[in-house]
Amino acid sequence: MKLELSGHTGLMCLLGHPVKHSISPKMHNESFSLLGLDYAYLAFDVKEEQIGEAVAALRLFDAKGFNLTMPHKRAVIPYLDKISKISELTESVNTVVNQDGCLFGTTTDGIGFVDSLKEKDFYIRDKVITILGAGGAAKSIIAQSALDGAKKIYIFKRMNASFEETLSFAKKVEDATSCQLEVCDMADMALLKEAIDVSQLLVNATNVGMEDDKRSLVPKEYLRKDLFVSDIIYHPAMTTLLQDAKDAGATYQNGEFMLLYQGAAAFEIWTGKKMPIDEIKKSCFL
Amino acid sequence: MKLELSGHTGLMCLLGHPVKHSISPKMHNESFSLLGLDYAYLAFDVKEEQIGEAVAALRLFDAKGFNLTMPHKRAVIPYLDKISKISELTESVNTVVNQDGCLFGTTTDGIGFVDSLKEKDFYIRDKVITILGAGGAAKSIIAQSALDGAKKIYIFKRMNASFEETLSFAKKVEDATSCQLEVCDMADMALLKEAIDVSQLLVNATNVGMEDDKRSLVPKEYLRKDLFVSDIIYHPAMTTLLQDAKDAGATYQNGEFMLLYQGAAAFEIWTGKKMPIDEIKKSCFL
Repeated sequence: MKLELSGHTGLMCLLGHPVKHSISPKMHNESFSLLGLDYAYLAFDVKEEQIGEAVAALRLFDAKGFNLTMPHKRAVIPYLDKISKISELTESVNTVVNQDGCLFGTTTDGIGFVDSLKEKDFYIRDKVITILGAGGAAKSIIAQSALDGAKKIYIFKRMNASFEETLSFAKKVEDATSCQLEVCDMADMALLKEAIDVSQLLVNATNVGMEDDKRSLVPKEYLRKDLFVSDIIYHPAMTTLLQDAKDAGATYQNGEFMLLYQGAAAFEIWTGKKMPIDEIKKSCFL
Repeated sequence: MKLELSGHTGLMCLLGHPVKHSISPKMHNESFSLLGLDYAYLAFDVKEEQIGEAVAALRLFDAKGFNLTMPHKRAVIPYLDKISKISELTESVNTVVNQDGCLFGTTTDGIGFVDSLKEKDFYIRDKVITILGAGGAAKSIIAQSALDGAKKIYIFKRMNASFEETLSFAKKVEDATSCQLEVCDMADMALLKEAIDVSQLLVNATNVGMEDDKRSLVPKEYLRKDLFVSDIIYHPAMTTLLQDAKDAGATYQNGEFMLLYQGAAAFEIWTGKKMPIDEIKKSCFL
């Protein structure tokens, strides 16, 4: 699917470092083309210390919207005019929309995650969740799940310098929602087993298992048939955790559709239109 | 002709104010598409006082090249790393190429003009030229014609505050080339007639005749069959000057192909490849 560009074509983009490999430009440009919207979505490799200049540049060029990926999701916040409630909670922004010169930031990572589960008929409301990791992606998933009515979330993270900060994040989410949160030490394997045993959903939101990393943080004997196992990694498509889930007869999903649905949510914020999901799945993900 | 954009697609653009109506994006994007080059060319409306920020933004986004139109052709110069000889002479830059982070500026307006005349088998070498106007476009035409071997150029301009500056420009061009230049008062109609009588080429490089302006600076009785009459205006396609030239049986040409060939020259500077002129003529100009 291709675009015809003119002097009227509006700029949209992704800022990240690295960024050139991202599927987002293809996903959005194809959607613009399918819906006849006059935008071009590019990817700009911008270092962390340049994020302020990059935002100023996008204001100058009157970009309608842009996405942020590593390492900018938190660093971008001081340069925006306003951020959403969930971005306040997670201190993370992946989507910015330019509303007549006012830059509004939010994160669609959590929505992307929650929407991706619906593909396999899994709904967050009243569920108990065990999540591994407490970084930006994990926080977005936690906050969105709490907002969407999850009953309890166990957060397992390494006992390091940022443990206090995770406790404070969990407290903020608890105060803002009716969800119960418990922050646990990743090294406590007995507690991990207990948490998984009472959970309907297990999420890996760490980078353990990415690329050539064959590790999984969860012993395969902790998995079971009626557990939904989600890994937000999509390279490789099948991590060791997902392979173990498959072997256990569990339902499982990698991070591809989270990527698709976070993009779809951003697309709708910018354009007011639904992304043509079925076509984009075919051309970008299958 | 359409483009397929990805995370690897490079940015190019036009900076101007106003700028959205420009044919340049269509011309360059179609050429990229025809030659399979992975760039997207957009137009950014940037005010004169923002040109420094805009250049910084294009450095940050690693744009491979960009064009300048009004009001930036002179204002951009302090923000570039190096400019060509002809840009030094004319104090005008319409094309910038990013050579591994070093921004090199030049003007292809003069080349565009000279190349456009070749369409009608007119060659500048050894010719005598009368040109009306001494603004940026006029200077580029004068300097390029002098560099390309014109014998003599009569420059007619209004006797105003910038007359001294035009004299100084003419002196610089004379010193740099073997062309003789004479700066004349636009109000001196007898001198205008004398100059046209000894010229093979008459050029209107003022905006008299643009849009709804039906005036011509040249009495129609000054025109003759063996004079080439060029108007750099292209809206309207047929100015009063060109209509008078037609009536006099002269060869004439408007500014469309100057626009085409300045773009073709810029395209080659950026990509090292020839613009597919015949296809671009058909899709953008005919």
